[in-house]
Amino acid sequence: MTDFAATRAAFDLPEGVIYLDGNSLGVLPRGAAARVERTIRAEWGERLIRAWNDAGWMTQPARVGDRIARLIGAPAGSVVVGDTLSIKVYQALAAALALRPGRRIVLSDSGNFPTDLYIAQGLLDTLGQGHELRVVAPEEVAGAITGDVAATLLTEVDYRTGRLHDMAALTRVAHEAGALAIWDLAHSAGAIPVDVTRAGADFAVGCTYKYLNGGPGAPAFIHVAPRHAAVARPALAGWMGHEAPFAFDAAYRPGAGIERMRVGTPPVIALAALEAALEVWDMVDMRDVRAASLRLSERFIAEVEAQCPALELASPRDAAQRGSQVSFRHPHAYPVMAALIDRGVIGDVRAPDILRFGFTPLYLSEQEVVRAAGVLATIMRDEAWRDPRFQQRQAVT
Amino acid sequence: MTDFAATRAAFDLPEGVIYLDGNSLGVLPRGAAARVERTIRAEWGERLIRAWNDAGWMTQPARVGDRIARLIGAPAGSVVVGDTLSIKVYQALAAALALRPGRRIVLSDSGNFPTDLYIAQGLLDTLGQGHELRVVAPEEVAGAITGDVAATLLTEVDYRTGRLHDMAALTRVAHEAGALAIWDLAHSAGAIPVDVTRAGADFAVGCTYKYLNGGPGAPAFIHVAPRHAAVARPALAGWMGHEAPFAFDAAYRPGAGIERMRVGTPPVIALAALEAALEVWDMVDMRDVRAASLRLSERFIAEVEAQCPALELASPRDAAQRGSQVSFRHPHAYPVMAALIDRGVIGDVRAPDILRFGFTPLYLSEQEVVRAAGVLATIMRDEAWRDPRFQQRQAVT
Repeated sequence: MTDFAATRAAFDLPEGVIYLDGNSLGVLPRGAAARVERTIRAEWGERLIRAWNDAGWMTQPARVGDRIARLIGAPAGSVVVGDTLSIKVYQALAAALALRPGRRIVLSDSGNFPTDLYIAQGLLDTLGQGHELRVVAPEEVAGAITGDVAATLLTEVDYRTGRLHDMAALTRVAHEAGALAIWDLAHSAGAIPVDVTRAGADFAVGCTYKYLNGGPGAPAFIHVAPRHAAVARPALAGWMGHEAPFAFDAAYRPGAGIERMRVGTPPVIALAALEAALEVWDMVDMRDVRAASLRLSERFIAEVEAQCPALELASPRDAAQRGSQVSFRHPHAYPVMAALIDRGVIGDVRAPDILRFGFTPLYLSEQEVVRAAGVLATIMRDEAWRDPRFQQRQAVT
Repeated sequence: MTDFAATRAAFDLPEGVIYLDGNSLGVLPRGAAARVERTIRAEWGERLIRAWNDAGWMTQPARVGDRIARLIGAPAGSVVVGDTLSIKVYQALAAALALRPGRRIVLSDSGNFPTDLYIAQGLLDTLGQGHELRVVAPEEVAGAITGDVAATLLTEVDYRTGRLHDMAALTRVAHEAGALAIWDLAHSAGAIPVDVTRAGADFAVGCTYKYLNGGPGAPAFIHVAPRHAAVARPALAGWMGHEAPFAFDAAYRPGAGIERMRVGTPPVIALAALEAALEVWDMVDMRDVRAASLRLSERFIAEVEAQCPALELASPRDAAQRGSQVSFRHPHAYPVMAALIDRGVIGDVRAPDILRFGFTPLYLSEQEVVRAAGVLATIMRDEAWRDPRFQQRQAVT
């Protein structure tokens, strides 16, 4: 059993705040600041260039990748960390398309995070080979996987509503149609149990600054199924993905397996924070996290619906169909959230009318969730959001 | 006049080391560790998601870019920071090729850093439109810029020999042939005076962990000449390069000017270290750095050549033809460098036989350079490098 008092003690939480935005930016793990300081002062400062070898900087992307692999059901050696999620989406999709040269359709859905769609469209435009990005409604994906689809590009948990795709079922449909399945786990890794192996995913990507608490702008990850690892073509053929980076050969030869998905020099300082953040997960069983997450989110929905008739649930009502967030709609979502943040309850907003609340059992208690709902109820009842102070839209990521 | 005692005091240098490898990884600026700690504890830890706005995280890539712009002769608003150099090379070349749709040749030289060549080849393979990467000897570049060249992709300072290309002259030749000029400033920014505007460069890219001291794996930069900024097509169309990232539109619309070259979520912690590192440059006039760099490197060459007949100068003898590094050849370069590092003089090696020494006047004195040459002379005279301890090859970046 996961000891959630112990996990909570592993984080530095600010005073006077109930944080329901760990689905956007996770909180600070106690070990991260000290680890980064050590990396900066003792490794960079003292060892300088020698630290590439003697502090293990060069092997860090795969070492950190292995920690993530465990959380998403991937075998060791099949995940590597670096760059941003956008870049990793580009790599995964480019590799998938090269494996399906005769097909011209990339299938995604309108609930996907925009950067996935932008990156896909940018890649297809760059290819200039008549590929089409076909975007359907989330519930129409299964029926749209026709024999001309090269790859599906789907985010398992919808960033706006928390709606959960059935990864295993959709992957099966994709494979039956001869397509490859790419899964974006941005809102899944550390949020819900994930098993890319059992689901048969071909590629998976994700970010580490949400539920994994890697820090603002922490590097992303990519998983390539072992059956593709030796043949996947890295479109972003950077030197760190070369079979022998320090041979400085004129010609590129892709590295063994997942190593080829590395691109440039690894972001050592960011990786130090992420590595410390991932150590917290040694204490965690994802099934316990799922159970606690559902308990927290069900309680939040019940409290809000009982007290705030003006808010409309935007997430699936069936807990099994949700990730670890709950969203409500309100025509004045922005000022409502501004008023809520002003009173120490932090969630965020997605255009045009979505209030988002993330549930992170590692550091969030049921009592706090009940208190947060109470604060929200007070704001709605008093219409506190009409205060001119809260009328300015704030962009939050 | 730059006060080099003051700049030296801005760095934390390890005891007992003479560091001649700032061309690979710059040393730790005193302000960087404290700045990162503040970003982690006070911004991430306390402000959490709110820090995207109130700590200025969202605008940091352009703000830091402006600091670099000043050092490379680029106007404010024409440089943005993020990703790695490999990614920025990809973006620059993809944008350049889209501006020259009728041409199929990318011209580079055999002295270019391999990742530039790998990334270029990877892009051309991805395009699949019959482009050719033509690689000639560095001294043959000018003559090889024919009317079918879409873009030249050159690194101003050769990473092995320190040989300096004439950026203005080659750019002029490129433009006369109707080609675009992309310059990699990895070994130029902070090393020598650079003026991309006067040279007429179309795109410039570089890394920040060498002479700029941004830290291991610090993010890269890209400059787009203002005349191209509104039309350059970002092949890596990430959400942070969108005109309105938080509108979450289904369709990508490139941001204004250089903003479109942003890709994913910015690496906030790494950017904090880099921003602190760049503040040191407020004290610096690049002309003084150049004069001091030449004084240090000329002295080093004179000392080594007087004392080490077995070492052959691999850099141009004419100081005007060099960047801020000096290289020597020796058939046993690896063990020689290992012996040198063992005695506290840190340089590095490039396959197969190059000993590299970087000169960084911000924190390196002439006295140290003379001492370093003396240690090298002792090792060569005693053949100390034959010690079995030094026979293992070490990869250093």
